Amino acid sequence: MKLTNKDILGIKELSVDEINLILDTAESFIEVSTREIKKVPTLRGKTVVNLFFEASTRTRTSFEIAGKRLSADTINISATTSSVVKGETLIDTARNLEAMNPDAIVIRHSAAGAPHMLAKMVKQSIINAGDGAHEHPTQALLDMMTIKEKRGTLSGLKVAIVGDIAHSRVARSNIYGLTKMGSHVIVAGPAMMIPKDIARMGVTVYNSLAEAIKNVDIIMMLRIQLERQQQKIFPSLREYSSFFCLNKQNINLAKEDVLVMHPGPINRGIEISSDVADGPYSIILDQVTNGVAVRMALLYLLIGGQR
Amino acid sequence: MKLTNKDILGIKELSVDEINLILDTAESFIEVSTREIKKVPTLRGKTVVNLFFEASTRTRTSFEIAGKRLSADTINISATTSSVVKGETLIDTARNLEAMNPDAIVIRHSAAGAPHMLAKMVKQSIINAGDGAHEHPTQALLDMMTIKEKRGTLSGLKVAIVGDIAHSRVARSNIYGLTKMGSHVIVAGPAMMIPKDIARMGVTVYNSLAEAIKNVDIIMMLRIQLERQQQKIFPSLREYSSFFCLNKQNINLAKEDVLVMHPGPINRGIEISSDVADGPYSIILDQVTNGVAVRMALLYLLIGGQR
Amino acid sequence: MKLTNKDILGIKELSVDEINLILDTAESFIEVSTREIKKVPTLRGKTVVNLFFEASTRTRTSFEIAGKRLSADTINISATTSSVVKGETLIDTARNLEAMNPDAIVIRHSAAGAPHMLAKMVKQSIINAGDGAHEHPTQALLDMMTIKEKRGTLSGLKVAIVGDIAHSRVARSNIYGLTKMGSHVIVAGPAMMIPKDIARMGVTVYNSLAEAIKNVDIIMMLRIQLERQQQKIFPSLREYSSFFCLNKQNINLAKEDVLVMHPGPINRGIEISSDVADGPYSIILDQVTNGVAVRMALLYLLIGGQR
Repeated sequence: MKLTNKDILGIKELSVDEINLILDTAESFIEVSTREIKKVPTLRGKTVVNLFFEASTRTRTSFEIAGKRLSADTINISATTSSVVKGETLIDTARNLEAMNPDAIVIRHSAAGAPHMLAKMVKQSIINAGDGAHEHPTQALLDMMTIKEKRGTLSGLKVAIVGDIAHSRVARSNIYGLTKMGSHVIVAGPAMMIPKDIARMGVTVYNSLAEAIKNVDIIMMLRIQLERQQQKIFPSLREYSSFFCLNKQNINLAKEDVLVMHPGPINRGIEISSDVADGPYSIILDQVTNGVAVRMALLYLLIGGQR
Repeated sequence: MKLTNKDILGIKELSVDEINLILDTAESFIEVSTREIKKVPTLRGKTVVNLFFEASTRTRTSFEIAGKRLSADTINISATTSSVVKGETLIDTARNLEAMNPDAIVIRHSAAGAPHMLAKMVKQSIINAGDGAHEHPTQALLDMMTIKEKRGTLSGLKVAIVGDIAHSRVARSNIYGLTKMGSHVIVAGPAMMIPKDIARMGVTVYNSLAEAIKNVDIIMMLRIQLERQQQKIFPSLREYSSFFCLNKQNINLAKEDVLVMHPGPINRGIEISSDVADGPYSIILDQVTNGVAVRMALLYLLIGGQR
Repeated sequence: MKLTNKDILGIKELSVDEINLILDTAESFIEVSTREIKKVPTLRGKTVVNLFFEASTRTRTSFEIAGKRLSADTINISATTSSVVKGETLIDTARNLEAMNPDAIVIRHSAAGAPHMLAKMVKQSIINAGDGAHEHPTQALLDMMTIKEKRGTLSGLKVAIVGDIAHSRVARSNIYGLTKMGSHVIVAGPAMMIPKDIARMGVTVYNSLAEAIKNVDIIMMLRIQLERQQQKIFPSLREYSSFFCLNKQNINLAKEDVLVMHPGPINRGIEISSDVADGPYSIILDQVTNGVAVRMALLYLLIGGQR
């Protein structure tokens, strides 16, 4: 089986079969990162460009490691050091890259839809590494991989996603994915952080953490973006924490074997307490490990000669 | 045949035979970038340092891709993150790099002559990736390669270069190169953008776009450096555009099969209209593709054991 | 013989045998950097992360070149572009990196003890590339390697270290190392730059350059950190220079065959005059060359399957 499109733009565009293909392929790559020699020659002679218009250590590093473990050449371009400062349009940047014949372009951009526009303009495979508040498909794929690894399935689960749902590309991509795979998604957060029409995506909405996590299998906490605080989207961090911080007490409302996830970087004591983040329920670091495997799988499926 | 010097400092220093050697070598490398496996082992175990004191995505990326496709190890150093901020002199930076035994140092610097000074100090091959308003030899070489690819020759052509000639290293390098190869160069721009003694370089000077491009084979538009505008070098962008923007109307003054070039990044609607930049005459993206091949050729000729 | 620990945190933690092992191994790697093909497959499939929270061209470049010449994959992360700006703790950054399964993490951090904390948290090898005013072990190792190369021994020598001893991690690491290896260390600098209890480290203290360098085998000049000047730690650069700049006159007080060292970047005319820095006694550039070899040795000993 093969992926239908040349790009990975969002979970919305992927079929259940495609998601399963990606997760199965990623599983087979997990082993490579545990070897003495963590490298396979699969993408030798391929060029992967990481084009990041927003700072990100972990996602960029994860893609760079994924590329290198497959023997691809990786090129990093960050907005601050790029000719973007000279006023060039995104389209011109992309067309110029295209002319240098890379095989895949991984893009993170603050504008929703930027990767989709690129994908139409250039012949290379585009991988969306986060576009505005829209989608972050590789994050959702690594989240699903981690859930499946721990629970054996992605169907029939109850998953609560808690935080600033309105501005979270991680939430959107996971809602698309988990719903497709047959799980039930619950979202929760302060009223102004819940989009009005979110129920249309097939999720249940709560305004309290306690209701949201009751009897769930998985709790996915979102990062509070402190840089938004000055925009007065929510009253105060202290108030937010008192209502929505996952801690040793309220976690008891969930199933006994609940799993706690977070896309990182975490704000300790704000959306998640340290004892929960570092505790036995937490699979946060498994997510990071699986991130490398998922990105290896995508690079392999898109440019490894399998399409 | 071999290159005479260990460095590529400017087109001024190259003979006609050397230019032909570089262009022929580059042509043979074009094919590598179109392969399934875009990599040859030619420079395995060689180290190429990209030492950039001015921001540049495309030139740095082009050199990095060129190095990697030849299997060289590439090291990027940018001024902002470098010890240059600690006040070290360029000479000390270079001597320190030299002591780490790289094979080639690619340098971009805002001071004219910086690469020449380096070349005298260190034993490694220095490639000038742009020095102030002086020279940008790899740009001129990729321009000449593109012209030759499209026209079959570099002699007997009429080439108009339009824009801020006085501050353009691209213009200077192309004037040296095209004149050497037997073509006739015309330059045009507002009076304060034309150096007083430019005619000595063997070019014809016009102050109007219309006169300059009449019956020419090639139009090379230069980028207006918006960051200079505050220095009041020219009255206003609007005024500049009304006189010197290449567009669908005035391009008809050139030959019917005229080719339009631009070193990028382009300012759409300022020095070139979008319909011309993206239109049938434009070979702007061919320039970018050939840039990788020219840089592969230079690295190969300088440090590939051919000297 | 093997290294005892998985990490290189400081010279303080190393035994004499371990220092000898590292220096002997480094010596055997010197030859690799002089080959036509400067690369050995020793660390193929290993991942080395350079995690730099302070800017540094030369140390980062030296580690990157060392990694690449051993065929390791190298990943650069600098604080300014990292998620550290999002407020993540150092521990979370490290644990996340750990989850991506690198083999070694090279860290430079402004906080003394940061590498030690990391080393306890993660299973990977940590190499301290400078922590605050604490230690800079790879610098001291390359210094000792250079001294041994020139003098044939590290014991019985008189070594003067001159400058801001109080804030110098280079000084501390060299004091630990040279004392361990049987040499006698003299330190000198303005009174406010000499820690009160420094004599406990087994060194002799002088407040004048002339006394300090009298009859010494080696003079190690430290860089005056100009960025500290505004904190009024010392009166003026002119005053500092008049008392502590090593120049053609005062160097005659040392042994006739004295060697002059400096960790770089040098401030010409402040702590060292140009004629001395570039003169016959100077082995400053040998230090840089040996830096690559020492770092290759450490990577090899820590993650090359020798432990």
